[in-house]
Amino acid sequence: MTDISRLRTFFEPRSVAIIGARKSFGFGYGLPKFLIDHGFKEMIYLINPNEKELHGLKVYKNVRDLPGEVDLGIVIVPAPAVPQVMADCAAKGLKAVIIESAGFSEVNEQGARLEREIARIARSAGIRVIGPNCVGVVNTANQFASCEILPESLGKGAIAVIAQSGIFGNILLDWGPEQGIAFSKVVTIGNRCDVSESELLEYLGTDSQTRVITLYLEGVKDGKSFLRAAKKVSRKKPIVVLKSGRTEAGKAAAASHTGSISGQDYIYEAAFRQAGVIRAKTFHELFDIANVLSRQPLPKGNRIAVVTSSGSLGVLTVDKCLDLGLKLAKFSPETIEGFRKSAPQWMSVGNPLDVGPSGMFAPALQAALMDENVDGIIVIPVVPFAVIRGWMQGGIPAGMLFDDILQGSRLSREKPLIITTIGKSEWVNNIKNISGDEIPVVSSPENAATAMAALYHYRRFLETAA
Amino acid sequence: MTDISRLRTFFEPRSVAIIGARKSFGFGYGLPKFLIDHGFKEMIYLINPNEKELHGLKVYKNVRDLPGEVDLGIVIVPAPAVPQVMADCAAKGLKAVIIESAGFSEVNEQGARLEREIARIARSAGIRVIGPNCVGVVNTANQFASCEILPESLGKGAIAVIAQSGIFGNILLDWGPEQGIAFSKVVTIGNRCDVSESELLEYLGTDSQTRVITLYLEGVKDGKSFLRAAKKVSRKKPIVVLKSGRTEAGKAAAASHTGSISGQDYIYEAAFRQAGVIRAKTFHELFDIANVLSRQPLPKGNRIAVVTSSGSLGVLTVDKCLDLGLKLAKFSPETIEGFRKSAPQWMSVGNPLDVGPSGMFAPALQAALMDENVDGIIVIPVVPFAVIRGWMQGGIPAGMLFDDILQGSRLSREKPLIITTIGKSEWVNNIKNISGDEIPVVSSPENAATAMAALYHYRRFLETAA
Repeated sequence: MTDISRLRTFFEPRSVAIIGARKSFGFGYGLPKFLIDHGFKEMIYLINPNEKELHGLKVYKNVRDLPGEVDLGIVIVPAPAVPQVMADCAAKGLKAVIIESAGFSEVNEQGARLEREIARIARSAGIRVIGPNCVGVVNTANQFASCEILPESLGKGAIAVIAQSGIFGNILLDWGPEQGIAFSKVVTIGNRCDVSESELLEYLGTDSQTRVITLYLEGVKDGKSFLRAAKKVSRKKPIVVLKSGRTEAGKAAAASHTGSISGQDYIYEAAFRQAGVIRAKTFHELFDIANVLSRQPLPKGNRIAVVTSSGSLGVLTVDKCLDLGLKLAKFSPETIEGFRKSAPQWMSVGNPLDVGPSGMFAPALQAALMDENVDGIIVIPVVPFAVIRGWMQGGIPAGMLFDDILQGSRLSREKPLIITTIGKSEWVNNIKNISGDEIPVVSSPENAATAMAALYHYRRFLETAA
Repeated sequence: MTDISRLRTFFEPRSVAIIGARKSFGFGYGLPKFLIDHGFKEMIYLINPNEKELHGLKVYKNVRDLPGEVDLGIVIVPAPAVPQVMADCAAKGLKAVIIESAGFSEVNEQGARLEREIARIARSAGIRVIGPNCVGVVNTANQFASCEILPESLGKGAIAVIAQSGIFGNILLDWGPEQGIAFSKVVTIGNRCDVSESELLEYLGTDSQTRVITLYLEGVKDGKSFLRAAKKVSRKKPIVVLKSGRTEAGKAAAASHTGSISGQDYIYEAAFRQAGVIRAKTFHELFDIANVLSRQPLPKGNRIAVVTSSGSLGVLTVDKCLDLGLKLAKFSPETIEGFRKSAPQWMSVGNPLDVGPSGMFAPALQAALMDENVDGIIVIPVVPFAVIRGWMQGGIPAGMLFDDILQGSRLSREKPLIITTIGKSEWVNNIKNISGDEIPVVSSPENAATAMAALYHYRRFLETAA
């Protein structure tokens, strides 16, 4: 058993050596600048035998030459030079190293030999290694990152990410903020010559900023460890996995990407189920599910109400709900009677509750929230934007129709609420602003159903696992 | 057999009566204004017994009072008033009427009776009717629309839409322009008391602006007619359908939305297959598939190359390709040798061709385009945006890496090319701008595979149907 708390050095280092800092554009130039700009100037050391000074900082020839103690090394040098760098790090007594360089087991046997060599050095020196072939960590709690990212990507959230691929982590961090998705920690683990997804899963299980853990995996390093870690953590926090390499060609592609052995997909499927791990089918599903799990309560049952201004999107959502083991709630007679009194004659009062252009979104949502036959609610506020614009020009604020959603939702914090919308970005952003940090806005009607089903099935798992 | 060419009046009317024009906010206020703003002032008549003047136009008491001939009526009055309006339209000799009012068979038996009544009047007067419970038509060729939409939604495209629901059409028109999706004609048909999706399918089959026909259906009005029309049209143009009401609860929801009888889903599935109709599973799939079909050639076979800068998104795409009957192309030895010569040592040269941060996107794409073992190409240009921003600040234009995509694609117009990307909207829009009108940028890696599979299977259908 490794001591999981030792992984903390990766996320909260007291001093960092960047080995491969350089003046030409690239990670070796951008990362030091990024860390300086984000307040880490006092704790970073730059290393490159061919440079003297960069971004106003002295550049040391070798990590061995550094004056003070160093916790963490970040390695950005060509693969063949990494074993020597590792030996230097061992001599200096570093605790942890992130190797970002590529060109190891994902390329060929020569690379695999190099990788085994660095793993051997790390083991004998007691250094923990993330990588190679990754971009390491991002910790929004202390704003530390081992790769250059956009400032807005450091917004604090409750979703942790473990991804095999560096670029996957990067584009996710670029993409998230505009989607209302923010992260606690992001780790990309590459070829995993030492630190595995299972150890990180356990570590993130203890992380107080993290409410949901997501993984993008092409293969599990060690099935037994993963299952053990997942079973332990999923009782505390939901785990959502996107696993690729499902098909033969996908497996081959994964092998040349991160050197992963993908194994048979049905085995993963069974293992995930047994461990209470939620499996996403697509990139967008992964983060829609995680976003919802991080912000909303679990439903008591599977009886869902759909409140919509588009009948079509309502029907599409219902179909997907039913596909995934949810039911349509049957509103109580009181709810139907009460709502019908104020509804216009053309409106069919049922579930989905299709309010059309009536403007009765807020009362519809409140009716669904108060009905004891309803366990969870999907809200689909869409509107012909030209009409909204007309109202705005006529002096009626655009938010009027939907501001009440948030207020309504405060009536019952026990029922999960998921919003989805389609339209002009100005409209979608308007809905995201109204929903704020409380209510997640997911990327499609189908994914609203998928996320609701994940909430329900996770609750069922917790009940049976208890 | 009806004469399909008569449907032309809906899309190219010479004069239009708007029955229910009014001063209070709503369709009756917005539509006349929209048509005046778009150059149709000379050909519209406004009708409302309680108004005298609106937007500087005289308001007539009854359609019977109009001085000139009228082709098309657009009806926006409460449901109970519609039969009388229809009788007036019959007396005046209108050829076609769009009834936008709701409150008919989708609500209750009383509404269904009203609907039968208006259908009877229409039939005996020889008036064709679209609706009720819809927003009618949009024709980007002549910029005519029977509902108020955003000016940018009138951009000319090659995708036709037949949707049962009015709001569905509206939000689609709001959403499309920012996605690079433009339409030829959009028709929402509501409860279909007269004109059916089958007739419109046939009509759009003859429309020279339309290259792909999409349908959102909750149920088919008459299975035999639909199958006959679809079989005929799908040999000329691809048809893509999103069919909801698949589940029991979905069927019930559809019935109260557009009065549709959804029937058993497996029957639809079989009918679609037989008629060569492509079935989409989600809203985004529907338009990603249509967008690709409208711009790209059909592949000669199913051997796909994936050119990517993200290994992860590459593997996810490969899995989905294989799920859908595509294969990964095996690059010729010449392609591999040639590419390896200039590739950095860390790059694994294979398919997916993962160029990582090498900047070798354009040569990779060219290699794939020239390889005779490749039938179609999915391109996934992603990049850590912070790095791109660094380059831009360093004087290197952001487009440099990817501008060549378009140029490269001109090497071979015979192979379909589909782009997908994930990241900050600034990046995504950059890629959309570079791709221009020629190469579709779809919403996810999984949908790139789905759209490529649609191209391949449609080609197979054409071959076997020939």
